Amino acid sequence: MSKHELFLYIVRKESFLCVGLDTDIKKIPSHLLMEDDPVFAFNKAIIDATQAYCVAYKLNLAFYESLGLSGQIALEKTANYIRQKYPDQFIIADAKRGDIGNTSEMYARAVFESADYDAVTVAPYMGEDSVKPFLIYPDKWVILLALTSNKGSQDFQFMTDAAGERLFEKVLKKSQDWATDEQMMYVVGATQAEMLKEIRKIVPNHFLLVPGVGAQGGSLEEVARYGMNSKCGLLVNSSRQIIYADLTEQFAEAANLEARKLQEEMSKYLQWIINAK
Amino acid sequence: MSKHELFLYIVRKESFLCVGLDTDIKKIPSHLLMEDDPVFAFNKAIIDATQAYCVAYKLNLAFYESLGLSGQIALEKTANYIRQKYPDQFIIADAKRGDIGNTSEMYARAVFESADYDAVTVAPYMGEDSVKPFLIYPDKWVILLALTSNKGSQDFQFMTDAAGERLFEKVLKKSQDWATDEQMMYVVGATQAEMLKEIRKIVPNHFLLVPGVGAQGGSLEEVARYGMNSKCGLLVNSSRQIIYADLTEQFAEAANLEARKLQEEMSKYLQWIINAK
Repeated sequence: MSKHELFLYIVRKESFLCVGLDTDIKKIPSHLLMEDDPVFAFNKAIIDATQAYCVAYKLNLAFYESLGLSGQIALEKTANYIRQKYPDQFIIADAKRGDIGNTSEMYARAVFESADYDAVTVAPYMGEDSVKPFLIYPDKWVILLALTSNKGSQDFQFMTDAAGERLFEKVLKKSQDWATDEQMMYVVGATQAEMLKEIRKIVPNHFLLVPGVGAQGGSLEEVARYGMNSKCGLLVNSSRQIIYADLTEQFAEAANLEARKLQEEMSKYLQWIINAK
Repeated sequence: MSKHELFLYIVRKESFLCVGLDTDIKKIPSHLLMEDDPVFAFNKAIIDATQAYCVAYKLNLAFYESLGLSGQIALEKTANYIRQKYPDQFIIADAKRGDIGNTSEMYARAVFESADYDAVTVAPYMGEDSVKPFLIYPDKWVILLALTSNKGSQDFQFMTDAAGERLFEKVLKKSQDWATDEQMMYVVGATQAEMLKEIRKIVPNHFLLVPGVGAQGGSLEEVARYGMNSKCGLLVNSSRQIIYADLTEQFAEAANLEARKLQEEMSKYLQWIINAK
């Protein structure tokens, strides 16, 4: 999907919501455990219940890998289900991958050839040749970790060089030599919303994938205020707040309501850029 | 496996060789493609041919993920085969994982519960809470990326703060607050062998996993000279040089010879510490 197509889709849906399918078999409603594939049954219900209000799904690969082969099967079925039933949705493999060139090539094949994701999250620590193999696929995206939403982001991402530049800023700057805003996005945690203003000075035009709204404490309004650009430029992820909104047989209805609530709020913020035109 | 057990195993095998099973279906001998599971058939032959000369196997998950489910099956069969047939071998999931705490927990379950690896490689960018969930498993290891063997290691790992400390040094120092040398190792690329002397000042007692010998150009002798400590402290990985030593039906014999050659060289270097006792 091109950047322009993504923007048009956001305008049409009046939403920049990404629903995070961090599906933990220990947390899903117990009646689903009688299904052949409980994880897929849960995901399918969540997807059907939320697709009207979101533009993207983020599949967190860790949750599927934790179950071994049965998890991999549920993952594949979930990604295929979205692709076939809701072909406009932007599908993200949240994998945080990154290795030496010939290995990153293999990770790229995994997400863009064996599977058909639109984007993959990549960790920057190993530098250019660990990222570039993901960039040879037309209309596919790298979402590079810049400033993450967790406490540990303080450990290294704020390291500062003699000129006052921090590691996450270096990542944002240097990676612009590797790809344009038509192929690269950045992860910027919502728990660091006040940082979005500074980040927008370095990457004014890029899309940002913003996790951490909801369960992790980030504020959607602040993210929109500091992070939105004229082409929206935001995909805001919510996982636990939506998918575990209710743990009874009404889980899908509850997810629907939560997603709708976020979409309605996003719709207001999108007016800022639509009215500005 | 405890650090002491690993050391004893190294002494017994007179080897600190780790064989990297970076198995690419496009590179394995063509006669294997008629097998039901060519990747596993290749791995099994390589393992049987090299196990006498190595103490560890490193399974590079990217290569298996690139094949989708059939790759995952080959991966699981390979890890189980080593565990059952050669239970003393140290088995590494080379995964470069790392995510926010509740997600790293899932990656940890994947490698230490669903599967039964001894160690997993982890990327440090997201800091403490991305690493700690891997550390709750007794006798299991985190191998944290410090200084990698690829060109891209120059991009961020050498970033220097005002006090002259580089990012990879910060990673080595700070991570010592999270785990001792009984549970953490570091990745240090052989292509940066001259750096091992400096790194040993920061982590004198830790094991280092050293990739990049062979195909990537690193010298085993330099690695041993600068990196070895009194408990060996090294696992040196070789992948392509061993597993693709020959691409005909004699591939296993060729792998055997390459592994043996490396083991004989390692045996010499191990005398330095055995004689020093």
